[in-house]
Amino acid sequence: MNIVEIIEHKRDGERLTGPEIAWVIAEYTADRIPDYQMAALLMAIFKAGLDAGELGAWTDAMLHSGEVLDFSGIAAPKVDKHSTGGVGDKVSIPLAPMVAACGVAVPMMSGRGLGHTGGTLDKLETIPGFRTALDPPEFRAVLEQTGLVLAGQSETLVPADRRIYALRDATGTVPSIPLIASSIMSKKLAEGLDALVLDVKVGRGAFMKTPEDARSLASTMVGIGAAHGTPVTAVLTDMSQPLGREIGNACEIAESIEVLRGEGPPDLVEVTYRLGEEMLIVGGVCAGRDDARARLQRAVETGAALEKLIEVVVAQGGDPSIVEDTSLLARAPHREVVAAPRSGYLARCDALDLGVAAMRLGAGRRRKEDQIDPGVGIRVPVAVGDRLEAGEVLAIVTWADTQRLDEAMPLVRRAFEIGEEAAAAPPLILGEVR
Amino acid sequence: MNIVEIIEHKRDGERLTGPEIAWVIAEYTADRIPDYQMAALLMAIFKAGLDAGELGAWTDAMLHSGEVLDFSGIAAPKVDKHSTGGVGDKVSIPLAPMVAACGVAVPMMSGRGLGHTGGTLDKLETIPGFRTALDPPEFRAVLEQTGLVLAGQSETLVPADRRIYALRDATGTVPSIPLIASSIMSKKLAEGLDALVLDVKVGRGAFMKTPEDARSLASTMVGIGAAHGTPVTAVLTDMSQPLGREIGNACEIAESIEVLRGEGPPDLVEVTYRLGEEMLIVGGVCAGRDDARARLQRAVETGAALEKLIEVVVAQGGDPSIVEDTSLLARAPHREVVAAPRSGYLARCDALDLGVAAMRLGAGRRRKEDQIDPGVGIRVPVAVGDRLEAGEVLAIVTWADTQRLDEAMPLVRRAFEIGEEAAAAPPLILGEVR
Repeated sequence: MNIVEIIEHKRDGERLTGPEIAWVIAEYTADRIPDYQMAALLMAIFKAGLDAGELGAWTDAMLHSGEVLDFSGIAAPKVDKHSTGGVGDKVSIPLAPMVAACGVAVPMMSGRGLGHTGGTLDKLETIPGFRTALDPPEFRAVLEQTGLVLAGQSETLVPADRRIYALRDATGTVPSIPLIASSIMSKKLAEGLDALVLDVKVGRGAFMKTPEDARSLASTMVGIGAAHGTPVTAVLTDMSQPLGREIGNACEIAESIEVLRGEGPPDLVEVTYRLGEEMLIVGGVCAGRDDARARLQRAVETGAALEKLIEVVVAQGGDPSIVEDTSLLARAPHREVVAAPRSGYLARCDALDLGVAAMRLGAGRRRKEDQIDPGVGIRVPVAVGDRLEAGEVLAIVTWADTQRLDEAMPLVRRAFEIGEEAAAAPPLILGEVR
Repeated sequence: MNIVEIIEHKRDGERLTGPEIAWVIAEYTADRIPDYQMAALLMAIFKAGLDAGELGAWTDAMLHSGEVLDFSGIAAPKVDKHSTGGVGDKVSIPLAPMVAACGVAVPMMSGRGLGHTGGTLDKLETIPGFRTALDPPEFRAVLEQTGLVLAGQSETLVPADRRIYALRDATGTVPSIPLIASSIMSKKLAEGLDALVLDVKVGRGAFMKTPEDARSLASTMVGIGAAHGTPVTAVLTDMSQPLGREIGNACEIAESIEVLRGEGPPDLVEVTYRLGEEMLIVGGVCAGRDDARARLQRAVETGAALEKLIEVVVAQGGDPSIVEDTSLLARAPHREVVAAPRSGYLARCDALDLGVAAMRLGAGRRRKEDQIDPGVGIRVPVAVGDRLEAGEVLAIVTWADTQRLDEAMPLVRRAFEIGEEAAAAPPLILGEVR
């Protein structure tokens, strides 16, 4: 094998063989291929793509660069949900307990926020005492005990992805569908899942801006799952406006608890149920969506889902009293209200602007090493299509630092557009790929 | 300036600005942009290209990464010739003294052989005592004294090119016309020339395999010269078969001396005169090709050209007695003759096969660090189109090592093809770009 020849083949649009791909990933992970050669190969892949066979081999090689979890000793079907990331997307937090309450084990590994999108780990860590850094034995123990676990990615899983992702980040090769798909899928397949549900976000606040790109990414990931023998269903959901009413960290935990109490905002509730249905179906617990929805609703109505959340919070060292009293969660001291300047219909409620504004307030990270402020956030009680009167509240900004507020407010203000004519609410569910 | 954004722009086929290009080259040369980011940018350039404006800025930034020579104190016009490299291409060696004898100063910087192509420095160094590593003051002194100088590239000139070329070599980004053109032109423009003549080789034994690619490279380089205010003429010449009869090092010096004695093989003589004509014209010494050819012929007939070679050999520490007696040059001890297996017309005499065979014998380098053997080589007394009788000599291989001979011979044998019907000799001069 010769790395320069492999680069040349991909540069010229030729197919790489399975052994070539396995060799490249293994040698790069072992520091025997330098970053500059991998960077050239990644740019060649960015331009030429990877076909289904190459992608299967690439993902498989990444997957086997580290530990692969095995939960075959646990009888329940193991199903995770992964979202490509959005603004106000706290779906994992109510979803995992709901699904676990219906008999599907959820070994969920999540990430941190970066840029305008939040991260499930940052939100969970606003629960006092809650630990997200679990080693594999502890991860397994929590899963066995409660039927779910909510943790960060273990360092021992898919080391190749960490290195390749860092290199892509520095070389302009992040937004490549095959590289995104293999990065996500290698990490998920290393979790020892029986099946996987993907929430592929579409729109201004998402990584995929158009339904076409989102569908292409979804199909690519479903294809990788099929090649690996793991059923994967992808649901395309809207991210043109924020999901739910809260953007931040502690405030998103409070809103997640509302969903488990049957009191969440309709868009967040709908996406959570829709993904839950798919998890119960691919997990083999329910035959169809109607049956699955009924099971999920019962888990909420009986309090079984909320009880699951309390169980996992306790198992991971968190203080369960916040579930009863969300006012115990962090909350920044000051509030700034943005009111509708005139009457009309809400025509735009920009997820990207609001996501960046929340990041500037301190809810997210500009760079990986930044610290987040758990108590800041933006409440957006309106949605596109709503009829508004002048003076009605568009957003309540909860803030701690004047300078950060000044950086965030112009974006909050420009995020909203009020029109004269009735505007249609964008479809929440744009399709599915299975 | 942000290197990731610059990579992204080029990745997406956008134009880079002059300041962006200048910044990238300066920061990379100063070790403030790492190899992996430069590798990604080079691959993006490989795929998207550089337009004329970008190419001018790229070349200019490379040129100014190091010392730029200034021979404005020398009254004669300064003109160099550069060849893109071929098999048996020793043209520089007779050409520089011929042109210098006609009143054009030739500050020639040459390279070493790599792969199947030979290098002028390796050939010159078979002259006992001849030194090609001259520092800038010595380079200038020889030029002032003799009107020509034949040396290697100074380390102080265009350091960016050495680094970028090494990175291209390791990342599959060598065969990119804008990158080749800027590499060549930055080095030539740093020589302080008034004008430049390019010999762009075309065919199996050349870097450019087709007239279209060769013309594109030639036009690109002529364009860079124009943007820089330096007149450049490119001549496209055949490299489907070796140039002249000798392939090797010492044997090519001997053949070069034959040209200066008026006894060289017709193809080598014709290419040498053709390039010499262009050098005298762009140097402003002659108005047209007929006048220029007459001047060059007179320089050969009067012995002035040969005298110039002797002068420069002495000035650079070489033993001039080899000019009188070329049997003093190195010659390997053994000979192997390849004879025509049947009568017919020579249909193929493959420059690439013969170049690789010569490299395997030890006349060239597989890797930069390899040592060459000055005395080995291949004499090819035939050319495509020749009528041959069975048993007539196709090649005489001069060799030193049995194992190397065994590696070379299959290529020498397969290089020749004899057909039944008369084959036309390929055109020697394919065109010109000015």
